[in-house]
Amino acid sequence: MRTVKLTIEYEGTLYCGWQVQPNGVSIQEKIMEAIFRITGEQTTLHGSGRTDAGVHAKGQCASFKTNSNIPIHRIPRALNTYLPEDIAVIAAEDKEEGFHARYSAIGKKYSYQLYINPHRSPLKRLYSWHLRQMPDIDRMRQTLSLFQGTRDFASFRASRSDVSDTVRSIWTTELVMNGDICRISFEGNGFLYKMVRMLVAATVEVGLNRKNVADIEERLCGKEIKDHKY
Amino acid sequence: MRTVKLTIEYEGTLYCGWQVQPNGVSIQEKIMEAIFRITGEQTTLHGSGRTDAGVHAKGQCASFKTNSNIPIHRIPRALNTYLPEDIAVIAAEDKEEGFHARYSAIGKKYSYQLYINPHRSPLKRLYSWHLRQMPDIDRMRQTLSLFQGTRDFASFRASRSDVSDTVRSIWTTELVMNGDICRISFEGNGFLYKMVRMLVAATVEVGLNRKNVADIEERLCGKEIKDHKY
Repeated sequence: MRTVKLTIEYEGTLYCGWQVQPNGVSIQEKIMEAIFRITGEQTTLHGSGRTDAGVHAKGQCASFKTNSNIPIHRIPRALNTYLPEDIAVIAAEDKEEGFHARYSAIGKKYSYQLYINPHRSPLKRLYSWHLRQMPDIDRMRQTLSLFQGTRDFASFRASRSDVSDTVRSIWTTELVMNGDICRISFEGNGFLYKMVRMLVAATVEVGLNRKNVADIEERLCGKEIKDHKY
Repeated sequence: MRTVKLTIEYEGTLYCGWQVQPNGVSIQEKIMEAIFRITGEQTTLHGSGRTDAGVHAKGQCASFKTNSNIPIHRIPRALNTYLPEDIAVIAAEDKEEGFHARYSAIGKKYSYQLYINPHRSPLKRLYSWHLRQMPDIDRMRQTLSLFQGTRDFASFRASRSDVSDTVRSIWTTELVMNGDICRISFEGNGFLYKMVRMLVAATVEVGLNRKNVADIEERLCGKEIKDHKY
C-alpha cells in the first residue's frame, strides 16, 4: 500500500475548518471526496494539524494510504478536477510506509495578519484583522517574545478545547510590517484550539496600551518548562 | 452646493461592474444608496472610469454634488456604515465647483495579474488569471511596448462597445514579476470596453508563442497618431 503526502492550499472563508464536523462543510471532507473520485477508495486523510473556521492555508500537509497506482505527478491535477476552486492540491509526494502527516510533522508555522488603517479594506478583509489605530510595535514585540519556549498555554485556548496536555513549544515569533499590513508569525511544534488568535489578541491589547506586558506574563502562569515530555 | 470627491476600494467579484445596469448589482448604485442614507439626497455619482464585472479597484475616484454639511472627514466612515463589506470609501475631499471625476481625470492606471504555476491557487484565484506554463517575458515586454502612444485601439475592444472614437493614449506599460505573479500595468487617458484584458490576452499569446509580435502590430492597424483631438 502506498502512503501519499499532499500539500494543500485553501481559502477557508466558506468552511467550518479543516476537520470533518457534523455541522458544516470541512476542507478534509472535500479532499476525501476527491480522493474517492479518483481512487474509488474510502480513505482517511490525516492533516498535519487542523485549522479553525475561516483560516486559510498556503501549505497544509496531509497524508493518506491508497492501493491506487496513479502516477504521483498526476495526483494534484486529478484531485483538483474534483475540488472546489477555493481548495487545491499544489504538490504530491510518495512517502515511506509509516509516514503520517500528523505524527511525522516536525513543526508548523501560523501567520496572522493585521490591517492597520482608519478605514476598512474590501481587498484585505478576508486575510486580515482590521485595526483602526496604530499599535505600539515595540510593545507588541516584547509581548511576542514572552511566548517563545516550552510553556503551558492553558490560558490561551478556547474553552471548547478538550486536550489534557496544554504544554506547547514555540520556537520563533516574528512581527513584520509591510505598509499597513502587520504579519505576526509563530513557529512551533503545535498549537491549541484558537491559540494563535488568542496570542495575537493579547499582543494587540498590549500594543494598544489596554494591557501591560506584565499582565500577559502573569496570564502565562509560570516559567519556561525545560524538561517536558510530549 | 458642495462637490465631493471619493476614493473607493472594492472587490468586484460579486458585481456586474461599476456602472448601474438593469441586470445585476453595480458598485455605483451601492454607493449612491449609501449617499442617500447619509444625506437624504438622490444624487448621481460620477466615476472617473468604469470597471467591468469582476474587476477590483484600489483607488477608483468618483464625485457627486450635495447640499449636506457633513464634515468631510466624517464622510468615509458614515458611508462605510451603509456599504457592504466588499466596498469601502477610503478617502473623501471637498473639491472646487466644476470638478467632475470623469472630465477632470488626467489619467488612469489599470493592472492585470497573471498567476504562473502548474497548479491553480485558491488564494490568488480572485485576483489573477491562471497560466500553467511560463510565458516568454521578453516577448511579452516587446508586445507591450507596441501599445504605447496614441493609437486606434478599435481591434482591442469588445463588440458591445458603442463609442465612435476608438483612439486612446497609453503613456506607460509595465510588466513586473514577483514570484509566480506577473503584474502588467497600463497608464493612459482612458480605455475602451474590455480593452485592458484584450491587450493582456494578446500579450500572453505572444508570450506563449501562439502569435508573433508582428501579428499584434498588424492588428493595431496603423502607426502612432501624432495629432489626435479628443
